[in-house]
Parts: sequence; structure tokens; C-alpha cells
Amino acid sequence: MSEESTPGPKESPPAEPRAGSREVWKKGGRLLSVLLAVNVLLLACTLISGGAFNKVAVYDTDVFALLTTMMLLASLWILFYLLRTVRCPNAVPYRDAHAGPIWLRGGLVLFGICTLVMDVFKTGYYSSFFECQSAIKILHPLTQAVFVIVQTYFLWVSSKDCIHVHLDLTRCGLMFTLTTNLAIWMAAVVDESVHQTHSYDSSHSNTSHLRLALDLEQRAGSSVGGDCSCNTVICQIFQQGYFYLYPFNIEYSLFASTMLYVMWKNVGRLLASSTHGHGHTPSRVSLFRETLFAGPILGLMLFMVGLAVFIIYEVQVSAEGGRLQQALVIYYSFNIICLGLMTLVSLSGSVIYRFDRRAMDHHKNPTRTLDVALLMGAALGQYAISYYSIVAVVVGTPRDLLGALNLAHALLMIAQHTFQNVFIIESLHRGPPGAEPHDTTPKEPCHGLTFANLDALHTLPGCPPTPRLVGTNPVGPQEAVAIILAPRGHWRRRCLKDISLFLLLCNVILWIMPAFGARPHFSNTVEVDFYGYSLWAAIVNICLPFGIFYRMHAVSSLLEVYVLS
Amino acid sequence: MSEESTPGPKESPPAEPRAGSREVWKKGGRLLSVLLAVNVLLLACTLISGGAFNKVAVYDTDVFALLTTMMLLASLWILFYLLRTVRCPNAVPYRDAHAGPIWLRGGLVLFGICTLVMDVFKTGYYSSFFECQSAIKILHPLTQAVFVIVQTYFLWVSSKDCIHVHLDLTRCGLMFTLTTNLAIWMAAVVDESVHQTHSYDSSHSNTSHLRLALDLEQRAGSSVGGDCSCNTVICQIFQQGYFYLYPFNIEYSLFASTMLYVMWKNVGRLLASSTHGHGHTPSRVSLFRETLFAGPILGLMLFMVGLAVFIIYEVQVSAEGGRLQQALVIYYSFNIICLGLMTLVSLSGSVIYRFDRRAMDHHKNPTRTLDVALLMGAALGQYAISYYSIVAVVVGTPRDLLGALNLAHALLMIAQHTFQNVFIIESLHRGPPGAEPHDTTPKEPCHGLTFANLDALHTLPGCPPTPRLVGTNPVGPQEAVAIILAPRGHWRRRCLKDISLFLLLCNVILWIMPAFGARPHFSNTVEVDFYGYSLWAAIVNICLPFGIFYRMHAVSSLLEVYVLS
Repeated sequence: MSEESTPGPKESPPAEPRAGSREVWKKGGRLLSVLLAVNVLLLACTLISGGAFNKVAVYDTDVFALLTTMMLLASLWILFYLLRTVRCPNAVPYRDAHAGPIWLRGGLVLFGICTLVMDVFKTGYYSSFFECQSAIKILHPLTQAVFVIVQTYFLWVSSKDCIHVHLDLTRCGLMFTLTTNLAIWMAAVVDESVHQTHSYDSSHSNTSHLRLALDLEQRAGSSVGGDCSCNTVICQIFQQGYFYLYPFNIEYSLFASTMLYVMWKNVGRLLASSTHGHGHTPSRVSLFRETLFAGPILGLMLFMVGLAVFIIYEVQVSAEGGRLQQALVIYYSFNIICLGLMTLVSLSGSVIYRFDRRAMDHHKNPTRTLDVALLMGAALGQYAISYYSIVAVVVGTPRDLLGALNLAHALLMIAQHTFQNVFIIESLHRGPPGAEPHDTTPKEPCHGLTFANLDALHTLPGCPPTPRLVGTNPVGPQEAVAIILAPRGHWRRRCLKDISLFLLLCNVILWIMPAFGARPHFSNTVEVDFYGYSLWAAIVNICLPFGIFYRMHAVSSLLEVYVLS
Repeated sequence: MSEESTPGPKESPPAEPRAGSREVWKKGGRLLSVLLAVNVLLLACTLISGGAFNKVAVYDTDVFALLTTMMLLASLWILFYLLRTVRCPNAVPYRDAHAGPIWLRGGLVLFGICTLVMDVFKTGYYSSFFECQSAIKILHPLTQAVFVIVQTYFLWVSSKDCIHVHLDLTRCGLMFTLTTNLAIWMAAVVDESVHQTHSYDSSHSNTSHLRLALDLEQRAGSSVGGDCSCNTVICQIFQQGYFYLYPFNIEYSLFASTMLYVMWKNVGRLLASSTHGHGHTPSRVSLFRETLFAGPILGLMLFMVGLAVFIIYEVQVSAEGGRLQQALVIYYSFNIICLGLMTLVSLSGSVIYRFDRRAMDHHKNPTRTLDVALLMGAALGQYAISYYSIVAVVVGTPRDLLGALNLAHALLMIAQHTFQNVFIIESLHRGPPGAEPHDTTPKEPCHGLTFANLDALHTLPGCPPTPRLVGTNPVGPQEAVAIILAPRGHWRRRCLKDISLFLLLCNVILWIMPAFGARPHFSNTVEVDFYGYSLWAAIVNICLPFGIFYRMHAVSSLLEVYVLS
């Protein structure tokens, strides 16, 4: 609901009567769809959170029924949309060049395929004891498979659309589909948290958390369907398999949500001719060269070491015996080194930008706005966990090696998120490499006025707010220097490409670890003892999914940074 | 972090070198201050939430120490800011006419005075057993009093400033002060929730929640300071008094936060000459006439009845005996009638707008953007409570009169919030009464072009996106009708003024009830039995403060609607 309806420099005045889009008040239509989304989402949230608690009389079948209904409705709307845009060719007069870049759509297809495999596993798992449970549990993965196929096709072909017919209906439909994805995401996160807690409790069931563990055993029992149990080998494989595929389903829902949000922002948007989308479409020639190779090689080394550390950690934690301490020391040491290097590299990237003379890109760009908001918002999850860890270590009494490692890890985590965000956000706002200051020499009619009468400028109605003036004026006297330095800019670009590739690989390994089940938060006893198990579990289970999403999203943003710089 | 840096129509191009504000990239400065605010806020959040749990080894003295430090630092920064703007007259070249309207500043002073009284009570309360507790507990209310005085003066004189010196420092200072206010708000909300839960438990201590009640007794004991207890009459009065003044402190912090946020958005902003701030400054002549009197009279009646219902409810709930059922029936019946009337009135207001021909105001206006975001965001709290209630009543087995009333109440609450938000947001986006379509007759040079060559318009670089074109073009053919109907517009304006006054009074009574301690959520056993006490208490204690803030904020927005329509 931000004040973005003021026409930006790239948009023509919205009074154009062509294509039937005579929208007097864009925010009114948005308001309607946001209200719909909020209400549906809260209803889903209520049922899902109620279903997660064993004591509450909301069952997982209720949640499955709701999700199935939502997915069917969303699929129907998508089919209606596709049919309509095919039949009415001038429904989409503009396409947003920034929306739905190829790596986002490629990632969507990849995660979509993994989700389909997960659905096959789930169907197989529930079919193993078909006779003793409700049909909705088999119907749900099948509907999800249909929904994923329809939605992936829809986003592949339509993610750049700026549609101009049935504005309010399209907004509501997009918001409903977005809500469906978020509901699926919430349900998956809750399911995974319950599963993680269950596997934690079954390995710690001799501690004082026995009561909770028993509750969860019962829940796990009930989710298998009353009296039936998963005894056959194939059923066990199905069960194991679909839990390992959850992270992909979670990412699929989030990817789809971000693309749907951008489509929603683009409904009824009027763009200048599409040739104006300059620079942000990368030249294919420079896509895979021009690096110094130091970044990718160092990144790959860290990636391999990280994978080894992760496997060692998982083996030692799941093995019975006193090697938990050793596993944690290895895990934290690797993370501290990796985070420290990433912090330094991000910082040096920001330093390089201080010598960079490319103009800042002030164009309106819903995709980038969303990227920035998601990076900042998702970082909050890891920030919160780190602050709780810091308080527990600093206030808590036992000070040992693990406490010190934990503290260093938490502090570096905060620093790394902060500096990486600063680097990525600054990178995304730089103009393309070609837009060095000296190519903005053609003066607009108002440019002369700017210098002739500065005070009169802002009262002048006819003077357009040309964004290119912004970057050029302050560096005006240095244009000659910029031209001389142009060959050395090549060196800066190589450095930036190396930095983004290194950070990308590090983010991938830091995504893999928590996404596939490393939970030092619980293996380490500092926080569990300080906050109590239930409070700490609530903190971690709410915040960690955001932290995992942050890594995924940082990877896609860094890929964009790599291509753009 | 939204994409608002694209210069809006009212702003001149940001390349103006006067007053030293040659900011290449506004978002970079904002990013820095947001990162500072997020980190400080999360640290405060960690300590406050840790301090709220009795089992966690974070004590309220830690929280007090943090808050005291933050308030001292914020006060110092404010004094520095005031000194600097006094010394350097051209530091504030522009003033935002929309920011800090008189009712907001008046409310701030009113709540500030109540907060000062609360601080006196708190100091008196803690002084009663000075010898046996840490000095920070007396230092904290004294520092808060100083902070409130300094900040209220600062916001009174500076809330309209668009400052143009030390941009990054000012942004960080404003964000830090904002964070301080939010931390005070969180601490107050947590304290009040603990107190509410404590008074609930002391009246239900014969139920199964005995363990929790004992925990809280211990906590209440510890907050009184170890072995000392509050025995004297004057100490009891101080204690009672400061708990009743908490709602004002909470509102003070939120009012100050919103004004600081708008100041933060206005840092480095370039505005056209201030005479352009048309219409949103109300003419004083029309401030208190032109109503049909039906709205205020009906509103006042509902207000008086509501007050009586509230007192009856409080007396019957606190009295021992079986009159709880009766009290709840009265409470819910009044709320259902009140919410139903408000829904109908909001709807009729929206219907009136369908016949209104005033142009929509598309100007950039950070104050309004924030108002809309806060209305939508704060409504989420009451939405969430209502959805949890609905699920509990629908899924839960016992269906009686109270269940039906509860369900109707929850459904009407959702409808009322939705329609009231739609009405308020639409009202805030209407142009002032003078801006009827027929006064935009002077055509800009581009206006002719719009009709001459529609397709060329959006590729034309020199054509400014004049927002007034937006509203006028679609109604172009009806201009004659608008002129004829002008006298009848007066009738519409009277209706809208009546509607806003009626809604305002209803929101005040619906604010008073929960703010001063009515908690039918716990007196009513439906949800407590369904979700269990601890889960339901968590839901209500997190969401209700937002619901209470919504009422307060709706009152200030409705006052604005009343003045503007």
C-alpha cells in the first residue's frame, strides 16, 4: 500500500484511454485484492497453526481439505486467465522487461519438478495404508501436482505481463494464487518443524522433555492414520524421501509467490515502449567470462569443505556417544571461517563501489523493490536467532569453548547478513556497465533551465523529473577522469564478478546445511538450558525458515549481480 | 525500502545543489539507518521478551537499564538536533504541510502529560521500598519523564521539517529515537499483558492453571523487589494508578513513532514551494459546523451506553458469583449492535463516494502512506483474534447462546474493520472540497497533445506526468453535470461529516473497553477450552495491542476525514 502510484519517470500518464484501462484510482483496486488475500491467509494461518498443536481439535485433514480447495480454485482461475489472454490479444499491451528473469523461471521449473517428485512420494506413502484413513490425504498431493504443473506453465509464459483487462478480477485472482502459495509454504514449514522436533525428541527422549516428546509421538502416530503403521520397506523409503524433498517445495512456493507479487504490481501498469528497458537484459556474450577465477575457485573449495563438514556433523550427531562436542566444534569453526570470509569479501565489494562512477538507477522497478524488501525482511529471521543466542551466551553462566564459538558465530552471522545486504542492494541499484556518466551528453530541453535558474526549476510544471540528471550532476567535473579511467573499470568489473560468484557459492552451502536438517541450535545446550526447550524451539522454528529463505533469495540476487556487473 | 525515490510530481529533480543536499542515492542513507534500527530493536526485543519469562535468567532490571540508556542517548541526539537547526537557519529549507497536523501534535501532548503522571506514580511506587531494590527502577521513570518532555517539545516544533544537513546522521538519529519509542512500547505492552494475566489468574486460581498463576505470583513478588511488599495505602494507590495509565503511555509511544517515521521519510526531501500544499490544511471556518447532527448524537448515545455496559461488565466480572454469563451476554450484545451499525454506516459512506466527483489526490504524501499502512497493519491483530475465535466456535462442540454471540461478534468485527478501512482510505485519497473537476480548466501544453496523438504521448520525454489529468480525463464528458450538481455536493459533504463523527465516537468507546481492561476473551470459556490457556493467552496478548492501537489510529484518521470532507 505504498505511495507508488505517483507516475514514475518511465511511465506515461495513466490517463490513456486505450485498451480499456481507464483506472481512476489504482490503489482502490489493490486495496480490494489485499483485503481478500489477508482474510484468506489469516483463515489458513489459523487452521494450520491450530492443526500443529496436538491438543487443539483441528486435524490435519481439515488443513488438507482447505489447501486442496484453494489449489483447485487457483488452478481454475489460472486456466481462465490463460484462456482469456489467448483469445484477446490486446489484453497485454506491455511487458515488464525486469519481471521474471530467466534464472528465476529456471529455478521455478527445477523446484517444481522436485515438488512433483515429492508429491509422488507422498501419494505412495499414503497409498500404503489407503484403507484406514480419509481420502483427502491422497487427494491432496494429486491436486498439488496438478496445481504445480498449471502454475509453472502460467508463470513461465505470463510472468512479464502487464495486463489491462478485468483489472480488479485479475488482481484478486493473482492475490488468491499468491495466498495459496503462502498457505502451502506455511503448512510445509509447520510440518517440517514438527518432524524436526519429533526427530530431536526421539533422540533425547531420556531427558526432561519426555512429556512433549510423547505428545509428538502421538501426533506422528495420528498422522500415519490411526491404527495403521508404516512397516513395509517401500513405505519407509517414501516417508524418508518426502521429508528430504520438503525444502524444494518450500522454495517453490516462495519463488512462485514473488513472481505472482510482481505480476500483481504490474496489473494495469503503463510502460514506455519496451525498448526502454535498457541494460538490465544482460548481453549474452559476457555471461560466462571476465572473472579472475579466484572467487569461484575459493568458493568451490569452501563449498566442498562445507559439504564434508555437514556430513561429518550429521554422522557424529546421529551416532550414539560423546562426540557431539567435537561435531559442534567442527561445525561452528567452519561456519565462523566461512562467515568471516564472506563479511570481508562483501565489505571489499562495497569499497570497490566507492570508486565506481556508474550512475545510480532510479527507475521504478517492482521486481527490484520486492527483492530488496525480501532480503531485508528475511534477514530478520537469522538476526533474531543470533540476538537470542548472544543474550543466552552473555547472560548465561557457563563460559566454555562452545559458548565462545557460539558467540562468535552469532556475531559474525549478524555482520555477514548486514554487509552482504548492503553489497547486494547497492549492486542492484547500479546502472548497467555501459551507462558510464559520459554517455548522457544529449541534453534535454529542461537541462539548460536547470543551470539557468535553479530556484525556478521546481515550480516549473513542464520540466520532467529526468532521473538521469541525478547521477550525472554531482560527478560533472570529473567526467574527464571517468573517460580516462574507463579501461581500468574493466578490472573493477572482474573483481565484482568474482565477489558475487564467491558469495553465491558460500550462500549455497549455508543454505544446504539448515535446509537438510543441521540443527546446532538444539545440539548445543546453551540456549536450550537458558530459555527452556519450548520457548527456544518456538523461536528457532519461526525464525529459521526465514533464514533459509534468505540464503536462497541471496543466491538468486547474487546471480543477478554477477550478470549485471 | 520501497521504490519511492522516483521523483513524484510535486518534487523537483533531486539534483539541486543548493543547501548542500547533493545526495546521489537516497536509499543508501536510508538503508544504513534502517539497519541500525533493526539491530537495536531486535536486541531490545530479545531482552524484553526474555525478561517477560520468569524461567529465563534475564531480569527486569536489565530491561530497565537498556531502556534508560536508549532514552538518554535519544534525548542527547534530540538536543543536538535542536541546537543545530537553531544555529543554522538554512538547514530546513522546506516544511511538509501534511506532516504533524495539529490533532496529532495535540494528542501527543495529551498522552505525554498522562505519561508524566504515570512516571510520578511509578517513582512514588518504587520509592516506597527504596532500600531493598536496585536504583535503576527509580532512575527509569525519572529518565522517561525527561525523555518525554524533550521529545514532545522536539516533535511539536520540528515535525514538519525536511532537513538538508547531515543527512545520514539525522536519519540514524531519527531511527534510533523511533526504535527507543518502539522499545518502550514493547516493554509497556509486555508489562501490561503480564499484569492482566496475573489478575486473571488470581481470580481463576482454583482452576487448572494453578502452576502458571504461581509462577506469576512469584514474578509479581520479584517485581516488587525481593522481600519488600507494597503494604501502605499510598503505595497501593500508586500501583493501581500506574497500571491504569499504561494505555496512555502506549499510545504516546506509537504517536511519537509515527511522527518520527514521517520526519525520517522527509529527510533530504525536496518540495515545491510550500504554497502548493493545497487543500489539506483545513479552513478554520468550516471546522465545527456543517453536520446534520444525527451522526454525533447517535454516536454520543452509543458512547454513553457503551460506557455503562463497560462498567456493568467490569463490576459483574470482578464480583464473585454466577453472573459472568449475564455480563458476557450484555457485553457481546452491545458490541454486536455497535459493530453492525458501524459496518452499515461505513458502507453507506463508500456508496456516497460512488456519486462523488472530486478528483483523486495522487500526490506523494508520506504521512498518508504511513496512515494507510498502519490502518491495514494494525487491523491484522483484530482479524487474527476473530479468525481464531471463529475456528474455535465452529469446530468446538458446545453450541449455546454465548457461542452464537461470540461467532456473530467475530464476524462483525472482521466486516467492520474491512469496511471502515475502505471508507477511511478512500476518504484520505479524495481531493479537498474545492477541487471539483471543473476547476482544472487551464490546460497545460501537453494536455492538447494528449488528445492530438495518444500513441505518441508515452514516448514523449518532455511531457510531465501531471496527476491532475488523471482524475479529470475520465469524467471529462460529465463536467457540465458536475457544475450543475455542485450545490447538492454540500448535502454529500454533510453526510460524510456525520458519518466520520459517528464512526469516531464508536471507535473511542471500542478503544476504551479493551484499553482499560475488558477481556471477554478469557471470561468466555470457548476459546480457552479449545486452544488451551497458554496458546490462547499468547494469541490475545500479541494481537490485542495492535487491535487497541487500531482504534486509536482510526480515531485520528477519522478526525482528518471529518476535517477534509
